[in-house]
Amino acid sequence: MWTRLAPIGREPETRGYRRYAWTGADAECRVWFREQAEARGLVHEIDRNGNQWAWHGDPAAGDAVVTGSHLDSVPDGGAFDGPLGVVSAFAAFDELRRRGAEFTKPFAVSNFGDEEGARFGLACVGSRLTAGQLTKERAYELRDGDGVSLPQAMEAAGYDPEAIGPDLERLSRIGAFVELHVEQGRALDLSGDPVGIASAIWPHGRWRFDFRGEANHAGTTRLADRRDPMLSYAETVLAARREAELAGAVATFGKVAVEPNGVNAIPSLVRGWLDSRAPDQATLDTVVAAVEQAAKDRAQRDGVDLAVVRESFTPVVEFGHALRDEIGALLDGRAPLLGTGAGHDAGILSGAIPTAMLFVRNPTGISHSPAEHAAEDDCVAGVLALADVLEGLACR
Amino acid sequence: MWTRLAPIGREPETRGYRRYAWTGADAECRVWFREQAEARGLVHEIDRNGNQWAWHGDPAAGDAVVTGSHLDSVPDGGAFDGPLGVVSAFAAFDELRRRGAEFTKPFAVSNFGDEEGARFGLACVGSRLTAGQLTKERAYELRDGDGVSLPQAMEAAGYDPEAIGPDLERLSRIGAFVELHVEQGRALDLSGDPVGIASAIWPHGRWRFDFRGEANHAGTTRLADRRDPMLSYAETVLAARREAELAGAVATFGKVAVEPNGVNAIPSLVRGWLDSRAPDQATLDTVVAAVEQAAKDRAQRDGVDLAVVRESFTPVVEFGHALRDEIGALLDGRAPLLGTGAGHDAGILSGAIPTAMLFVRNPTGISHSPAEHAAEDDCVAGVLALADVLEGLACR
Repeated sequence: MWTRLAPIGREPETRGYRRYAWTGADAECRVWFREQAEARGLVHEIDRNGNQWAWHGDPAAGDAVVTGSHLDSVPDGGAFDGPLGVVSAFAAFDELRRRGAEFTKPFAVSNFGDEEGARFGLACVGSRLTAGQLTKERAYELRDGDGVSLPQAMEAAGYDPEAIGPDLERLSRIGAFVELHVEQGRALDLSGDPVGIASAIWPHGRWRFDFRGEANHAGTTRLADRRDPMLSYAETVLAARREAELAGAVATFGKVAVEPNGVNAIPSLVRGWLDSRAPDQATLDTVVAAVEQAAKDRAQRDGVDLAVVRESFTPVVEFGHALRDEIGALLDGRAPLLGTGAGHDAGILSGAIPTAMLFVRNPTGISHSPAEHAAEDDCVAGVLALADVLEGLACR
Repeated sequence: MWTRLAPIGREPETRGYRRYAWTGADAECRVWFREQAEARGLVHEIDRNGNQWAWHGDPAAGDAVVTGSHLDSVPDGGAFDGPLGVVSAFAAFDELRRRGAEFTKPFAVSNFGDEEGARFGLACVGSRLTAGQLTKERAYELRDGDGVSLPQAMEAAGYDPEAIGPDLERLSRIGAFVELHVEQGRALDLSGDPVGIASAIWPHGRWRFDFRGEANHAGTTRLADRRDPMLSYAETVLAARREAELAGAVATFGKVAVEPNGVNAIPSLVRGWLDSRAPDQATLDTVVAAVEQAAKDRAQRDGVDLAVVRESFTPVVEFGHALRDEIGALLDGRAPLLGTGAGHDAGILSGAIPTAMLFVRNPTGISHSPAEHAAEDDCVAGVLALADVLEGLACR
């Protein structure tokens, strides 16, 4: 399965993946999914929001067990974030067949669209739309870096953007959703376990800081006459790190856009995006408020105007204890519980249906990078654990 | 003249100009130049490096007097930086005709290509090539942001990149080059004069700082496990301002490129460009060394690798006193002398032939911005001063 999937959307120079929503690479991944479904006699289906499903049994019967993840990537992402969950889902199905297990409930593998939000800036668009957490109106306002809107991109990829919207009837037929994912930190590496179970997803959000100054000549404008937004931005980057450290949270400026972005021009605009996450809401609020205050103070000194916009936000997700404990028992207590700072489709869906997550050990913790890795033995352990869970949930 | 030139390459949204070398906007400006030449019966010529000339009299006679500037712009530049010198050159020629002045020497208006370096990152490419300050080999290595090389861009614009190189024979026929330019600071505004004469151009250069860290997930990577180059970059931006302030110089980070530049990814690479200038070489060396040291110290703390490359450098240019004094006398001492931090084609050519510069008052000092401005009265004063100078140099 990996062999066919591995080269799709891979950048020769960086060896990283660029599988963005509704692009050619995304379409190739979707063809791969359909072929995997058909090769196993599963019924392939695309829902109104472009998510893919591969069904065994009749979905309409209800109380279905679903497992899957996503196939899109961040810019220059790794091979595992997303695809490991989809590949493991098909492999676990194969393992259950090998064991001769008989499904007593409908079962499906899923691929949720646009999980990373690399193209339109909002994560988990496919699951958000389905769960009614993103309105059609707001989705229609999303634009990529070239000004292409989400409906335009969907239409260009051969999908009907008129159809998108909540799909609660579909969700109501699902009794349990389990997402397997490569761990994106080092908790399992430090505890020595190949597989873990998610306890909670930290609350997290994205804030856009627009620092507006005055474009001017970098050689001839006296320092006293400048309104240089790069200075305000730089101070804010350092403040974010400082405040996160103080609070036991994380805060990152990973994306920046500068106008006019010329070597000999003082910028008129520096736009920086803050990603911040913390174990609880109060801590996150404290960090973001302190970063905003530091940005405001410095901008005032620099004669720069500041506007801060919260672009997305996901409150803390505590995965339901009933399903979590059932899965823990199915794995004989051999998988520890761990929290995570990363958002996932499972987190979005947890508001509507019982969801749970399994993590596979990441020996370096590196993720969202071509260097992202999981050992083959650990991937196999992940598939077997997922098969045990699915057998317990869907075959008894 | 302005009416035809003003709309070319203007961005509707920012009202700024984007006239980059060898683009469509550049070609339109060049057509405008040829038309202005032909309308006055001047002989239009394009040299081997793509610079334009409009000749009155026989260039081969030698000891020619030439005036001009450039028509390209920085990203979202103003209307005056460059074009004012070319428009004023044609207007001064018209004024001399009106006065009935008779040329005793060959005369030309010139437009030097790619002065701003907005596309390929190196300023004054047209004059540098002509003066032998940029080799054909190095010019061939220049690439724009899309990976298009300079020879590819020239060829696409209909020019022969094979022909480029030093053109000292052409320069040897020129006895004096005078460039009129809008001032890019506020010295004339503060002194209350509409027109000034350049004394010297500060030494200046561009340094590229490559901070290499490790791409990783912004939500799940512990602060202690990060190698975040954005932090090192931010500290360096603030250090540049601090060191420039201490030394009475200027230092600016106006351009930055980030990889992968995703909201939820710690960057693998932050590349920032430092532009720095100072009244003398020793001061400039001190500033740049201090910024490099601050960058190095912080990069070490962040586990980030740093490489600093000097991309371009122009030593101090002291304009020749003989021509400068002659011009001062022709203007009856009514134009004060002033230094400038900006580079110009006149600075490049001053190594090979006698050159001088006139500045026209800029009431706000704002340049490299759509808000760049010069009052109409001051522009007229500039044209009349240039006509006085040309009459003195070429008509006696």
